[in-house]
Amino acid sequence: MAKVADLYYQLDPWKIAEKGFDKNRSEVSEAIFALGNEYMGVRGYFEEGFSGATLLGSYFNGIYENSPEENRVQYKGIVKRSHFMVNAVDWLKTEIIIDGQRLDLNRVAVRDYYRELDLRSGILTRSFQITTGTDKEVFFKFERFLDMEQAQWGYQKISVCTKAENVELELTLGADFNSEHVSQGQNFWREIKKDTVGETTGILGETLTTKQKVFSGFYLKNNQSLSSEVVTRDKFIGRKFNVKLSRDNCFEVEKHVNNIVSKTPIATEKLWQKGIRDSQRQQQISYEQTKINQKVYWKKVWEKYDITINGDELNQQGIRFCIFQLQQTYHGQNKTNNIGAKGLTGESYGGLAFWDTETCCLPFYLLNNLDAAKNLLEFRYETLSQARLRATELDCKGACYPIATLNGHEASDLWQHASLQFQPSTGVAYGIFHYMNLSDDTEFLYGHGIEMLIEICRFLASRGDFSPTGEFGFFGVMGPDEFQMMVNHNGYTNYMAKKTFEYTLQTLSEIARVKPERKIELISELQLTQEEQELWKLCADKTLMLIREDGVIEQHDGFFKLPHLDIQEIPIEDFPLYHHWSYDRIYRNDMIKQPDVLMFQFLYNQDFSFESKKVNYEFYEPKTIHESSLSPSIHSILAAELGKNEAAYEFFGFATRMDLDNYNRNTREGLHTTSIAAAWMNIVYGFGGVRTDGPILQLNPTIPENWHDYEFKFTYKNALIAVKVSQKFVSLTKITGPDITISLYDKAVTLNDEVYEIKRNY
Amino acid sequence: MAKVADLYYQLDPWKIAEKGFDKNRSEVSEAIFALGNEYMGVRGYFEEGFSGATLLGSYFNGIYENSPEENRVQYKGIVKRSHFMVNAVDWLKTEIIIDGQRLDLNRVAVRDYYRELDLRSGILTRSFQITTGTDKEVFFKFERFLDMEQAQWGYQKISVCTKAENVELELTLGADFNSEHVSQGQNFWREIKKDTVGETTGILGETLTTKQKVFSGFYLKNNQSLSSEVVTRDKFIGRKFNVKLSRDNCFEVEKHVNNIVSKTPIATEKLWQKGIRDSQRQQQISYEQTKINQKVYWKKVWEKYDITINGDELNQQGIRFCIFQLQQTYHGQNKTNNIGAKGLTGESYGGLAFWDTETCCLPFYLLNNLDAAKNLLEFRYETLSQARLRATELDCKGACYPIATLNGHEASDLWQHASLQFQPSTGVAYGIFHYMNLSDDTEFLYGHGIEMLIEICRFLASRGDFSPTGEFGFFGVMGPDEFQMMVNHNGYTNYMAKKTFEYTLQTLSEIARVKPERKIELISELQLTQEEQELWKLCADKTLMLIREDGVIEQHDGFFKLPHLDIQEIPIEDFPLYHHWSYDRIYRNDMIKQPDVLMFQFLYNQDFSFESKKVNYEFYEPKTIHESSLSPSIHSILAAELGKNEAAYEFFGFATRMDLDNYNRNTREGLHTTSIAAAWMNIVYGFGGVRTDGPILQLNPTIPENWHDYEFKFTYKNALIAVKVSQKFVSLTKITGPDITISLYDKAVTLNDEVYEIKRNY
Repeated sequence: MAKVADLYYQLDPWKIAEKGFDKNRSEVSEAIFALGNEYMGVRGYFEEGFSGATLLGSYFNGIYENSPEENRVQYKGIVKRSHFMVNAVDWLKTEIIIDGQRLDLNRVAVRDYYRELDLRSGILTRSFQITTGTDKEVFFKFERFLDMEQAQWGYQKISVCTKAENVELELTLGADFNSEHVSQGQNFWREIKKDTVGETTGILGETLTTKQKVFSGFYLKNNQSLSSEVVTRDKFIGRKFNVKLSRDNCFEVEKHVNNIVSKTPIATEKLWQKGIRDSQRQQQISYEQTKINQKVYWKKVWEKYDITINGDELNQQGIRFCIFQLQQTYHGQNKTNNIGAKGLTGESYGGLAFWDTETCCLPFYLLNNLDAAKNLLEFRYETLSQARLRATELDCKGACYPIATLNGHEASDLWQHASLQFQPSTGVAYGIFHYMNLSDDTEFLYGHGIEMLIEICRFLASRGDFSPTGEFGFFGVMGPDEFQMMVNHNGYTNYMAKKTFEYTLQTLSEIARVKPERKIELISELQLTQEEQELWKLCADKTLMLIREDGVIEQHDGFFKLPHLDIQEIPIEDFPLYHHWSYDRIYRNDMIKQPDVLMFQFLYNQDFSFESKKVNYEFYEPKTIHESSLSPSIHSILAAELGKNEAAYEFFGFATRMDLDNYNRNTREGLHTTSIAAAWMNIVYGFGGVRTDGPILQLNPTIPENWHDYEFKFTYKNALIAVKVSQKFVSLTKITGPDITISLYDKAVTLNDEVYEIKRNY
Repeated sequence: MAKVADLYYQLDPWKIAEKGFDKNRSEVSEAIFALGNEYMGVRGYFEEGFSGATLLGSYFNGIYENSPEENRVQYKGIVKRSHFMVNAVDWLKTEIIIDGQRLDLNRVAVRDYYRELDLRSGILTRSFQITTGTDKEVFFKFERFLDMEQAQWGYQKISVCTKAENVELELTLGADFNSEHVSQGQNFWREIKKDTVGETTGILGETLTTKQKVFSGFYLKNNQSLSSEVVTRDKFIGRKFNVKLSRDNCFEVEKHVNNIVSKTPIATEKLWQKGIRDSQRQQQISYEQTKINQKVYWKKVWEKYDITINGDELNQQGIRFCIFQLQQTYHGQNKTNNIGAKGLTGESYGGLAFWDTETCCLPFYLLNNLDAAKNLLEFRYETLSQARLRATELDCKGACYPIATLNGHEASDLWQHASLQFQPSTGVAYGIFHYMNLSDDTEFLYGHGIEMLIEICRFLASRGDFSPTGEFGFFGVMGPDEFQMMVNHNGYTNYMAKKTFEYTLQTLSEIARVKPERKIELISELQLTQEEQELWKLCADKTLMLIREDGVIEQHDGFFKLPHLDIQEIPIEDFPLYHHWSYDRIYRNDMIKQPDVLMFQFLYNQDFSFESKKVNYEFYEPKTIHESSLSPSIHSILAAELGKNEAAYEFFGFATRMDLDNYNRNTREGLHTTSIAAAWMNIVYGFGGVRTDGPILQLNPTIPENWHDYEFKFTYKNALIAVKVSQKFVSLTKITGPDITISLYDKAVTLNDEVYEIKRNY
């Protein structure tokens, strides 16, 4: 089962670089070199086209299509039509014809190929040299980046130079709505309008069924003051330069692109006008100035979020890549955005956001960018009405959050997931609780937070049930361990629900105490009744947790009686099991896909004794095959806590490099964005021993043997703290902000302007 | 939950008759008046066309198409493409234009309408009178029947008479491959050839993807020696008469139709020649003679199979309708035929055969037509290689029989049924066991029978598993109660498997003893090993049956801990639950769809004590909602055995009239053929108290209070026996055959040429 690294990119603390071009890795590199700014994302494809393997993907957060086919299984409560993030306008579209021949790196020998993504600026460059069919040497350089603040703006620069004479270059730059959504095998766009207005060349497309619109306008500036002619085809508009290049002569063109999306219906002309105006505004700012702005932006990010690791160059590069990608994917720009399983880097998983958002991604933002964390929760509030609708589809009350979504509606048409898994709902409740541990945002909690909590409790109480002997729990569910289906009293589901009831009731008491007028409002606006609160209390009090004498919590009723499967005996070629095993075979033994009992022991970490965590870890870990890429990090975090340092390091592996080294051999489909978040957690919560599931932040740092030292930063109660851990010492530095108290090795420490240093505990 | 009868047809012991035409019942009547002869079936649609609701269905046993769409859920072991019985040639196709106006009973006022199906001849007639647009009175009479022995032949006769002058009649009779398969919304036929050869007008069609061919040829004979012209359209050939009718004048035309199917590939010309030859042969036999032959055929059937009920006219008519339909649907003509859930009377359930064949239909044939019973088992032998393939798709050994099929391949693309339900496989084993109780056919048992048994055992042993404490059973299954999914140790599955292992091992010992050379052959041909036989013994010995102290067998591990649902509180408008409840909601309480524990207590009836059956009946019956139409009959049979006479009669209800009175309001989709078989069992096994699950046939007759007496017949060990039961007496008469011993009220009785009569026991 061992996964093997595929080291390919240059080792560098601040860069991802590819020296020399390997055609077989073209799609993996498209994912690795993907750029994003939350608003949009574009894979690192060759803008000039590539006849080899390529997934030419350009995405906008929240721009989606409905799946063309209806689900054939049409029982009530089963999603009829799924949706997915749709491949959108190729705004980097370029055609290069050099001495009559189309540039295609699949068909021409390339020299001095070099591609680099600079994590300090977000700028992606690529340069190489070719010899044309007419035996002339030509040098190319491409550059692209996205504006991290003016998020609708993207930039591209192309330079073509030669040392030969009379090189004929035809260069067309445009915007193209013809890209196919590869996994669906079709294009989902209709062209609405295209035109040139002043310096702006624009095109406006609309999705076929969701009727979302995207405007893409661009402005070109070249170093030879050459004029270009407009080229149009169906769903495409471009501008073509005819250039004659000679010895030591370069043609250089900058493309300033302005992409404006409208997720909700808008009149074509209104969007067109807005697009043109915004493009004109963009033309006021120089390309070079914008590049500088990006460096400034990323400098601030690294000042707050950077992690340094001395003694492990691979993980040093890896963790920076992770932080860079998390920031690219999401930073709280807009509360209608969320974090897809693959970010904005591929089509896989339909670009959908899962429960990982609250459980695995939220911590990164809670400790680095509290506004972004809040916006992730606001996304759930924005989509509360969809969750209410989903609950009624399931014959339940309240609100049921979707397993997978872009627009708030359930997108999973596999009923065994969409109708049996409730970790998204309890995850939202957990997210609110977690956010409140790190903020004092009672305005949110008493406002949107409590509304969501009430509706989630209503859902849980109506979906759960009482056994004939009076225990409350959930029947016919699937917990995070997706290898056990239609089980009763799944420990995760029961425990998370119990905690949700308790936190909601506690919050309601608090509101009654400190803001009684809000309680009255809730009673009238949400028809909150005393009876339902009593029911939630009863549910919480009667929730069944099956705990064996030795402290092992039974994953569900009957788990201990399942046939045992020795997972070490599964041949490596059987993985992934979903592809190689008969579907039902996965579900009838004690094999575990990903942590379930251990997951809630991680989330509500401080609820459980060291002994309880130890006995459960030792029971469940050997049964777990980690078929989710999040699984090893959760195990590593718990192993570190339990003093199992070897296991902690082994499970950590090179979590930070899962994609860089293509461990799962599917990075070409897109980056494992939520695993990237888990890798960050693996360092901060695992080795760093941070815990945020209580009223005070806990720190219990350990350090892998082969690391000299490492340092991570976080923001807690407005203070920016740096934690440096070496083999012998732990030092805490408050960089900015007020004095703050945290717990270090179970001892309260108040950080002020002095560095606090102690010996490492163990 | 009470279902209400919709009495519509005339009450008559031997006929189903409709007086006056109700447009709203057109489709129900199409099912009720469907004709079949196992080879083909045709709904009772109006051959002249009908612009109201109609399902113009004409079917051939085993002629099917693959579903146009692939299953979107494509995990391993999940069926990618389903198949279904396809709507085929409309060989009754007629067009009638009278004084320029098309005859359409939806658009013209009709008088003296009368339709009748005579159960003693299988002849369907229809007559009525209309007034034309030109104000002339015209009388129509239609007649049709299928040849029960020359099964490819069907007949139709049309008479048109008038008392007016100069009525112009255009009458076209033809064969039409244009019918749409309504549930799929398309036609699945390609025309290959059409032509006239001598007196025969023929057309040959082929299914689109399965490439099965059907030849339909016809010959017309009219009473006025008029000639007709050939009319052709795409996929249609017909002959048109232009007739002038005058006062007291009739035009009468007979159509002799010859339909030849080829289930396996055949050259077009070969089939065409065969079709033409066979049509010529058909022309040698007169229409009237063939009609007489049918009466003779049915007379013999009734002599052997009839059930008479004195004192209950409704059930008298009902049970005859049932027997008639069973004989029409299947009588063992061909071992590549089986019994679809709707026979040959509609598209519903894809025309597929389910596990009901062995458990519910087989008994009718076992007691009436042993050759037919054997052919049903031979169907499973014919499709053994498909069942082997299915087992490998499920990562198992041996052979797994399909939940639903026409061609032996699994047709159900719902994995929760196709991958979790094994009653088809244990049902085949049970069928073999059951057949052997009624025959001495060791040639079958030691030949095809043991091969199937071995392969079924292999499947069961590889799909089952051992719990950590050593009990054998099935994990992740769905028993006959389809409201409990992915359960462990389902009592039905475990028990049926245990019995299968035991019967197979017993049969293998017997073979080793009486025919050792066959055992050696099995070892070499099937690689039968000692190890696997030991494993089967271990599986049988260690099979876990969960029995509570009070004798209640737990339906599966954990059933007793499920939330209780009071089924009496479900509002009537919630039924059927599959349509009104969220899919997952059905699966998480103690509600039962159809008997599960009670089912295996019925099948292996003599394995269980009276007390065991009583306590289980009393526990499970109140939880059962009978969402399968078979369920009430099984309950009625057990209730009769347990002396619960009131319940027995209540559950019997008018089982024999489920379709005649459209109890489920879906008869229009086709007859409930397997429920019809259950209704027959309800009388013979229920009130008659017949048991055939042991070495000697048992009889324990009861009688409903309001019946004066009833009589049923069966053939047992070559003797035809009549059992007459009145309120006071039971009399047994051996009509033909050797002396035979049976058990009556647990006392052995040898029947010879004297009538044996005793007082009824209770």
